[in-house]
Amino acid sequence: MHELRKDPLLGRWVAVLTEPRAPSEYEIPSNEENENSCILCDGREDETPPEITSIRRPGTMPNTPGWWVRAIPNFKPVFQVEGDLGRKGVGIYDKMNSIGANEILIESPEHNMRPEDMGLEQMVRLITLYKNRITDLEKDPRLRYILIYKDSGKGAGATFSHSISYLVATPVIPKRVKEELDGAKQYYEYKERCIFCDIMREELRFGDRIIVETRNFVVFCPYAARFPFESWIVPRRHLCAFQDITGEEIEDLGLMLLTMLKKLRAIFKEPPFSYVIHTAPNRVPRKDYWHTLGEDYHWHLEIMPRLIRTSGFEWGSGFYILPTSPENAAKYLKEVG
Amino acid sequence: MHELRKDPLLGRWVAVLTEPRAPSEYEIPSNEENENSCILCDGREDETPPEITSIRRPGTMPNTPGWWVRAIPNFKPVFQVEGDLGRKGVGIYDKMNSIGANEILIESPEHNMRPEDMGLEQMVRLITLYKNRITDLEKDPRLRYILIYKDSGKGAGATFSHSISYLVATPVIPKRVKEELDGAKQYYEYKERCIFCDIMREELRFGDRIIVETRNFVVFCPYAARFPFESWIVPRRHLCAFQDITGEEIEDLGLMLLTMLKKLRAIFKEPPFSYVIHTAPNRVPRKDYWHTLGEDYHWHLEIMPRLIRTSGFEWGSGFYILPTSPENAAKYLKEVG
Repeated sequence: MHELRKDPLLGRWVAVLTEPRAPSEYEIPSNEENENSCILCDGREDETPPEITSIRRPGTMPNTPGWWVRAIPNFKPVFQVEGDLGRKGVGIYDKMNSIGANEILIESPEHNMRPEDMGLEQMVRLITLYKNRITDLEKDPRLRYILIYKDSGKGAGATFSHSISYLVATPVIPKRVKEELDGAKQYYEYKERCIFCDIMREELRFGDRIIVETRNFVVFCPYAARFPFESWIVPRRHLCAFQDITGEEIEDLGLMLLTMLKKLRAIFKEPPFSYVIHTAPNRVPRKDYWHTLGEDYHWHLEIMPRLIRTSGFEWGSGFYILPTSPENAAKYLKEVG
Repeated sequence: MHELRKDPLLGRWVAVLTEPRAPSEYEIPSNEENENSCILCDGREDETPPEITSIRRPGTMPNTPGWWVRAIPNFKPVFQVEGDLGRKGVGIYDKMNSIGANEILIESPEHNMRPEDMGLEQMVRLITLYKNRITDLEKDPRLRYILIYKDSGKGAGATFSHSISYLVATPVIPKRVKEELDGAKQYYEYKERCIFCDIMREELRFGDRIIVETRNFVVFCPYAARFPFESWIVPRRHLCAFQDITGEEIEDLGLMLLTMLKKLRAIFKEPPFSYVIHTAPNRVPRKDYWHTLGEDYHWHLEIMPRLIRTSGFEWGSGFYILPTSPENAAKYLKEVG
């Protein structure tokens, strides 16, 4: 028996199987490795586009070994930094130039280092790189949004076997983000409270979807998830922009992310997954437009294991069928490792 | 170079590669066949749930051979016909029972008959079955929407090797459909014209995204497609509900659908694909609520080849990167046999 659940943020309904289901019922596609030809590794810095920035051992030079994490332009950028927006109409249609940024954030100099196996220190460097890149790009007034995400495994759309994250900066606010912002704003206008703060409070009260909590973060399976074993890492401190996190929060976030990825691997053995940071749109120089943003939005990180194939149903309807309840998933995630 | 395009209906932006790209640049996952154990074949009618309806040779009995197309309940229904909606709140969340219908529409008695290889007569029977099932289920006042879709190939989420379509009836209007309805309604309120009629007119004027047209239908690659080689079959006659099509239109639609699937196969060799019929929500007994529906909505069929894997970017942003422009795709689709 399934029940239907409405995501209080987006208004999206999902059908959730209420019976427990074992994780072993999923098939996982395998990853192919291809490390000989990898130019993202240590020592091949001159074969990539020049680095944008890196966090590296003191005394080492840019574009030479010695880096721990490294940001480079994407080899095949979809969005380009140069140019103006060039908005225009074509008949009834609207278009604009693909202004923005596409960066590859190399997570480690070692080819086979998966994020699950990084030490905390390395994960802290990676999250610091995320923060630094957003802080830098937010200054460009043409850019409206900066999305950082990661795909792990072919089944999640990963195209490199070297472990990387991506940054995409866009001159429009992407639809899914806009829907979240609008949903949060509507809720705030009605209740004068942040919906994410309310959701976190409800989750802590119910308890059965909570996976782990620390001083700074609460991790849970959302009530109306789209993916089985989907989880959200939400900061306790109400903060609209990810890049405003403190050093202590970065360390705590690193620990939570490592913990969650290790848990997923312990349950599924190298599952393909994606994660994405949902943060506020760029606030410079549009502070006035988003005047309530500081109050009504709340950044968070969404982890989406890619255990099932989507079908024409999801694509045609925007309706998701969830074959594992979030409570059941949370139980497995809480208990493992 | 990509350009960004805004879908005039949903407000969704996509990045479109403006350079031509050859179809041979896509990898297609292969299908595994498994016909010995197939209980959807002719002669095994007693191993499936009893049929809901079928179109069959005169004089043959239900649940025996002699059928051409056959509707049966889904083996693992997500939505169930029995019960009431049971709407309720749980803390800040909302839920309801999963009332609805899940049907498997078996497209042929033969195991290896792919829709591309059906004769027109068989395709007409299948479309007639689609029409009959929607017409029947629309009478149930608990149901708000009836979605018919097909997945072909594992890469599109197909779970049977026997060729089938699915019907899902839901007690809520799915999000993607609601967004289309809302977008069409807003456009109508502003312009007092149907947006689909306007899009069709613009496409015929531009011409470069048109694949094929007949007396009753226009087939084109939409301006801001989500998938490479995505195409829409749109009826020339303004009609909100698919199930109101005439016999002549059914025959013409069958011809268009066969033509498009053959074209896709000629270009990609058994590509995974999905298609979905987008029609009006159930009009009975809510005629008053959707009082402008007859004017502002326009049914159509969307064909989505599943040539690329979606990544955390699409899932996290709702922003799609299209590696082939619709004009380029239309050129290939138009020219191929």
